[in-house]
Amino acid sequence: MNQESQDIIVQPDPLREFATTLYQKAGVSVEHAELMAELQVETDLRNVHSHGTRMLAWYVRSMLSGEMNAKPEIRVVQEAPGIAVIDGDNGLGHPPSALAMKMAIEKAKSAGIGAAGVRNAGHFGAAACYSMMAAEEKMIGFATTNTGGPSVGAPGAAAAVIANNPLSYALPAGEERPIVLDMACGASSWGKVRTLQMYGKPIPPGWLLTADGVPTEDPDEGRILTPAAGPRGYGLGLTMGILAGPLVGGLMACHKHQGEPSEHFFIAINVSSFTDFAAYADEIDRGIRAIHATKAAEGVDQVYLPGEIEWLKREAWVNDGIPLHVDHLRELASVAGELGVEICWEW
Amino acid sequence: MNQESQDIIVQPDPLREFATTLYQKAGVSVEHAELMAELQVETDLRNVHSHGTRMLAWYVRSMLSGEMNAKPEIRVVQEAPGIAVIDGDNGLGHPPSALAMKMAIEKAKSAGIGAAGVRNAGHFGAAACYSMMAAEEKMIGFATTNTGGPSVGAPGAAAAVIANNPLSYALPAGEERPIVLDMACGASSWGKVRTLQMYGKPIPPGWLLTADGVPTEDPDEGRILTPAAGPRGYGLGLTMGILAGPLVGGLMACHKHQGEPSEHFFIAINVSSFTDFAAYADEIDRGIRAIHATKAAEGVDQVYLPGEIEWLKREAWVNDGIPLHVDHLRELASVAGELGVEICWEW
Repeated sequence: MNQESQDIIVQPDPLREFATTLYQKAGVSVEHAELMAELQVETDLRNVHSHGTRMLAWYVRSMLSGEMNAKPEIRVVQEAPGIAVIDGDNGLGHPPSALAMKMAIEKAKSAGIGAAGVRNAGHFGAAACYSMMAAEEKMIGFATTNTGGPSVGAPGAAAAVIANNPLSYALPAGEERPIVLDMACGASSWGKVRTLQMYGKPIPPGWLLTADGVPTEDPDEGRILTPAAGPRGYGLGLTMGILAGPLVGGLMACHKHQGEPSEHFFIAINVSSFTDFAAYADEIDRGIRAIHATKAAEGVDQVYLPGEIEWLKREAWVNDGIPLHVDHLRELASVAGELGVEICWEW
Repeated sequence: MNQESQDIIVQPDPLREFATTLYQKAGVSVEHAELMAELQVETDLRNVHSHGTRMLAWYVRSMLSGEMNAKPEIRVVQEAPGIAVIDGDNGLGHPPSALAMKMAIEKAKSAGIGAAGVRNAGHFGAAACYSMMAAEEKMIGFATTNTGGPSVGAPGAAAAVIANNPLSYALPAGEERPIVLDMACGASSWGKVRTLQMYGKPIPPGWLLTADGVPTEDPDEGRILTPAAGPRGYGLGLTMGILAGPLVGGLMACHKHQGEPSEHFFIAINVSSFTDFAAYADEIDRGIRAIHATKAAEGVDQVYLPGEIEWLKREAWVNDGIPLHVDHLRELASVAGELGVEICWEW
């Protein structure tokens, strides 16, 4: 069965309204419901379906069951001229994360750099949502988070020791699109392994280890994900789990369990505190054009910048609608049914 | 011929004095000469010979030829409460880089986070020298630099587009040693490729591409280094070259040529502005011990933390002396002979 044939086109505006309504039905304030819908639909528009509205049903059910706090009292618990720490009161991760990046941006306006951490909150979705907030303000943004307990190994380990933590940098340009890196520190993810397995496709070598730390391409034998580029991904994943972890009052991955609240960490670097923004932006534009003009390998149409393919998807889908998998929509329809909300697409 | 048999043991104290004298003979101030010797011998002690005193002869000759400024006027050209930009006046990279990290640390004491960039300076040696300065002050340190013109490809490219830029994080612990990540963004380096070629050893698959962007394991056919973990190393290398580049008034790799002055970039994050340092340090210590206790794969003695093997080398070599390759020492002896300085080892 072709994967595309399982997609249904959904328009972003109605999807945003639908998501806002569902969050409100789960007890979330209008302000937070609109923010959640905005960030999740933006993530879908960038073709990062794993981190967009696909997560909505899970979040809503966590609030309905009382596992997650629908009406958190978000508080700034530490503050200095360049930094802040925010307690998310066991609520959704996106609202305190957006506040943290806003505070980092404000602080960077006067200090030149600002950072903010969040503790005791849910997942924050895609890291790029927050780094891009800084790029919109002509700043370089950085965002990271931890993904809970250990799932990725260390070089030489026969057990997982770090989480598959992502990190994102967004770098503003002038006339060109911002450069947006959003990567995990593992060689892959369990989600990708299970998807390949479901479609009967081979698992690329180097992704998985058995419980004895022996490389395997058999998804049933695989117990440990490898870190991307060995010691590099291990070191980065460990570091991200300390920034979004003990630095803001949380735990390291090896002491965490799935389902516990998460920590997040953000930096904003104000370009114009360092140099003339126009000169910076001209140089970035020139660099982007030079990379576009680079000779491509055989069979490759052109060389892209990090995040560029996501920008191109967004530019197309904001008009044409977002293709969403029927399983993704079935899950949304199920939670909508429970809450008496009408769906915004036709089957 | 065994590689170890080509090593001669040199004691760190006399090596430091020797290096200090050589820099002074090249016209460098006592203060900068001592700093250079200190950082380069520390780098040798950590078994990072590629970035320690091995570079001394090249730096000294660059100053003697007038290509590099031996008596730079190091100036702070931009400043805000959390940041600074320093112009290195085309001198050695280490002195303005150490000043930049010191300024970042000072700013982080009051602002919670500090950053500083350096432009118009030479190479800065090993990135970990600077990130570790922050860890000594109970801060999380970050350091990056650019390595000049393009040498590493992008996914799908048949030409190099980014430099093989390193990045380092140093994270303080309590009773345990700081965690020190120091990595390049390429899958390997030309230095390693040439060393393997010299010893007649195979080049690991995935490191090299031909001029047409086709993977090769033949070092004579290889023209492009691949980025570590494909899009991850590409994105990180590109980002590091913008932080240590256009952000501080420099150029992107695709507009640079080898031998031009470099840019450097540093961040210090003051842990105690975010959380109680003792609680942070306890959690890091607990995490380090949990990782040490992790089951190791067959044939592996134990799982190490990033930078730990370098700490163990340092702890042994600070007493036993540093094994340095005869070619490394011949080069030092040659420049010492030209400047009338006695060597501090026996052949």
